[in-house]
Amino acid sequence: MLTLGDIAQRLGLELHGDPDLPIEGVCGISDDLPQHLSFVGRPKHARAARTSAIPAFIVRPGGLVDGKSCLVHDEPEYACALVAALFAPTQYSQDVAIHPTAVVDPQATLGAEVRIGPYAVIGRGARIGARSVVHATAVLMDRVVLGEDCVIHAHVTVREDCVLGHRVVVQPGAVIGGDGYGFVVHEGRHHKIPQLGNVVIADDVEIGANATIDRGRFTATSVGRGTKIDNLVMVAHNVQVGEDCLLVSQTGISGSTKLGDRVVLAGQVGVTGHLEICSDVTVLGKSVIAKHVLHPGTYAGIPIRPVAQWKKTVAWLNAQAKQADEDGA
Amino acid sequence: MLTLGDIAQRLGLELHGDPDLPIEGVCGISDDLPQHLSFVGRPKHARAARTSAIPAFIVRPGGLVDGKSCLVHDEPEYACALVAALFAPTQYSQDVAIHPTAVVDPQATLGAEVRIGPYAVIGRGARIGARSVVHATAVLMDRVVLGEDCVIHAHVTVREDCVLGHRVVVQPGAVIGGDGYGFVVHEGRHHKIPQLGNVVIADDVEIGANATIDRGRFTATSVGRGTKIDNLVMVAHNVQVGEDCLLVSQTGISGSTKLGDRVVLAGQVGVTGHLEICSDVTVLGKSVIAKHVLHPGTYAGIPIRPVAQWKKTVAWLNAQAKQADEDGA
Amino acid sequence: MLTLGDIAQRLGLELHGDPDLPIEGVCGISDDLPQHLSFVGRPKHARAARTSAIPAFIVRPGGLVDGKSCLVHDEPEYACALVAALFAPTQYSQDVAIHPTAVVDPQATLGAEVRIGPYAVIGRGARIGARSVVHATAVLMDRVVLGEDCVIHAHVTVREDCVLGHRVVVQPGAVIGGDGYGFVVHEGRHHKIPQLGNVVIADDVEIGANATIDRGRFTATSVGRGTKIDNLVMVAHNVQVGEDCLLVSQTGISGSTKLGDRVVLAGQVGVTGHLEICSDVTVLGKSVIAKHVLHPGTYAGIPIRPVAQWKKTVAWLNAQAKQADEDGA
Repeated sequence: MLTLGDIAQRLGLELHGDPDLPIEGVCGISDDLPQHLSFVGRPKHARAARTSAIPAFIVRPGGLVDGKSCLVHDEPEYACALVAALFAPTQYSQDVAIHPTAVVDPQATLGAEVRIGPYAVIGRGARIGARSVVHATAVLMDRVVLGEDCVIHAHVTVREDCVLGHRVVVQPGAVIGGDGYGFVVHEGRHHKIPQLGNVVIADDVEIGANATIDRGRFTATSVGRGTKIDNLVMVAHNVQVGEDCLLVSQTGISGSTKLGDRVVLAGQVGVTGHLEICSDVTVLGKSVIAKHVLHPGTYAGIPIRPVAQWKKTVAWLNAQAKQADEDGA
Repeated sequence: MLTLGDIAQRLGLELHGDPDLPIEGVCGISDDLPQHLSFVGRPKHARAARTSAIPAFIVRPGGLVDGKSCLVHDEPEYACALVAALFAPTQYSQDVAIHPTAVVDPQATLGAEVRIGPYAVIGRGARIGARSVVHATAVLMDRVVLGEDCVIHAHVTVREDCVLGHRVVVQPGAVIGGDGYGFVVHEGRHHKIPQLGNVVIADDVEIGANATIDRGRFTATSVGRGTKIDNLVMVAHNVQVGEDCLLVSQTGISGSTKLGDRVVLAGQVGVTGHLEICSDVTVLGKSVIAKHVLHPGTYAGIPIRPVAQWKKTVAWLNAQAKQADEDGA
Repeated sequence: MLTLGDIAQRLGLELHGDPDLPIEGVCGISDDLPQHLSFVGRPKHARAARTSAIPAFIVRPGGLVDGKSCLVHDEPEYACALVAALFAPTQYSQDVAIHPTAVVDPQATLGAEVRIGPYAVIGRGARIGARSVVHATAVLMDRVVLGEDCVIHAHVTVREDCVLGHRVVVQPGAVIGGDGYGFVVHEGRHHKIPQLGNVVIADDVEIGANATIDRGRFTATSVGRGTKIDNLVMVAHNVQVGEDCLLVSQTGISGSTKLGDRVVLAGQVGVTGHLEICSDVTVLGKSVIAKHVLHPGTYAGIPIRPVAQWKKTVAWLNAQAKQADEDGA
């Protein structure tokens, strides 16, 4: 339990109101919880804030909420995220840094303050950077390199030779470095092409639960700095994802496709192989990208077209549908 | 091996025919197996039953099958499910209730007759209800609460503070309580919003293999009583799923959407965030729900429309396609 | 490190050029790596090969590349796959065949040269064929049968009574034999039908990371010889997949559907239940199969139609979209 004053001090924020206010967590305005801190992201939310049971808010300069204690920050939601970190609970408690049941190869190297949970397996020649946490049952195979301040959750598999940067977070069950889907036909049957490449993940990447990122066939599959990959996403072999991309849940990217920076693929998007998607492209959910995308912008559809075109097509199809319905009636 | 008489007695069913008939399992009519028990769900199946190699059937009152031994129940398929439970095989044998290799925090509490498999990990403050089974390698992190008569399969992860009710079944590899996909932009980059909420799952819920249910951002993601979630389904942070819903494989529900009761989403459906779907809505496979659904009924399409409209649209499109084909010929 | 001469000798290939050339790996032409061996699959690639930094290529008879050392094979890509196997790295090193932390039931039987990693769990009555490798944390439950020369990766779950053939490869996190999605309504609620069947996987099958193959309700779900299943694919209960099929990532097949041989389903395809898909059918990505497919050929669309028809429909729709766009302008 912290006071509002504690929080203001830790983040160096200007405080208006009661510094002794007890704060037991953060919440959204609609969560409407007493003894919590929330934020006013937009002026239109000020009224809901004022009438809520929430005692304190982070607000923009000049955005004080009548009758509430306030902290001031230019980016209230960002500041609220910083405060939330103060309330993060423990995930798996253990009294020792390296749990006695962890199998760490003698030829693996661990940085300072590394924590490893029960039944984690660290392969020969693996290197784990300072302050990284490897949770229970996670498996890092031979020669995996993990940067500093990473969090690898339970049941994650990182296969041999994959390289992860600093501050990478991998949610439970994700698989990094599984074999790519590569086969060659010989005498009418599919024969496996040994997948000798690896996966290289840059700093500040997050990978969602049960997502899969396949290793390259002969070289690397790569994910750029700051990119966030959601649950159950599939990134195939030799794909190159740029920086600060968002790949939303259940999206799939086929082999050897290249994404630029700040590409946003909403949920369940499919991308065929060997394509180039330029930077600053946003694609709405369920869409299919089957050709190169050379111009920044927002697209939608199966296959995609510019979103304005797509909306008109959908409206027109709905009209046709209603017409067909009336004709049928 | 049981006799038909044993089965009639255990379920208290009226028997017509040979009580000494040896029964080694249950099957569907099309499986056509000797020494098995099947059921006649609909009158039209009686002929196939009569001509099959199956010696015994569960039938409706008055639905006896000539030349076969029969048990009588108003709901033959349901009765067959009860019989099937008599033939369920062991999954992982061990001679002790708590396998010696399980890591159970001293501050975890286990109910009567709890069974825990090898290499399972139970965190600090976790509570497991009577008769629940935690299979090999499953991980329950700090303060997880599990009700009575649950089955948690291999490689399941339940992250900190999540709460599961009674008789909950979680298939292998499912992840409950992974971080939601929540980021805030600061200086042009995506920064993680700590996900402080949890997942609350009511009684009699089943969760499929490798499905993922993310924890809420500040509050709870919730799944209502009796809801069945299939493999590889994604339920995002702060989603609220009602009671007795069916979410079929590879369906994805985006953040903060609310589903009523008895909502059926067929395979590969996508639902965008912050929507309200009322009770008694059924949506066909591959559809996209992008707006609130206020009226019960059956819908289909990308985006969805009432199924009758959608069928006419598809028929009309197929006609256009054929026309285009002929024009092209 | 091998020399080109070593490689020629091991594969029995005709060598033109420098047998002492050091080769440290294989690569694609576009990877353009020194000290690597690549292949010329098509005559049109010869020029890129000649101007690359790659010192050696596998080529078709008569396809020698000026200024490069060459090995000759009728199928260069296939030969390159054979060479790649010579460079496959270790995945998890251990000095003993059966890691001391593996839990192997005394009533399980292991063939010659079986290797089992740390924290793997082998159930009662399980049988593992000669030379198979079970990686760290993999779980094979009671009575699982695994053939010879199989590779089971980390965090794989094979549930009770499932049967895998020879040379089967299962990537990390895949679940074989989870309960099918089978429920029966009784008094308005969904009750579980115990899933008593199993999964039977033939020889030379590969199963991708986090894919799920459910056990049959009363009988078997089956996958035919040589079929390759990609990451995050869902194969539901009682599905029967033929031989040499390719099921690409995130495809889902509903219960009791039968696929013939050499069926190719591209990424994110959905197939409804109780259908028959004949042999030699190819379906493009994101398509939906909702009816029986009786004729070999290539199909696409939601729902599918012959690909030529589908292409014309898409072209026609795009024209409509542009028109709608101009009208709107």
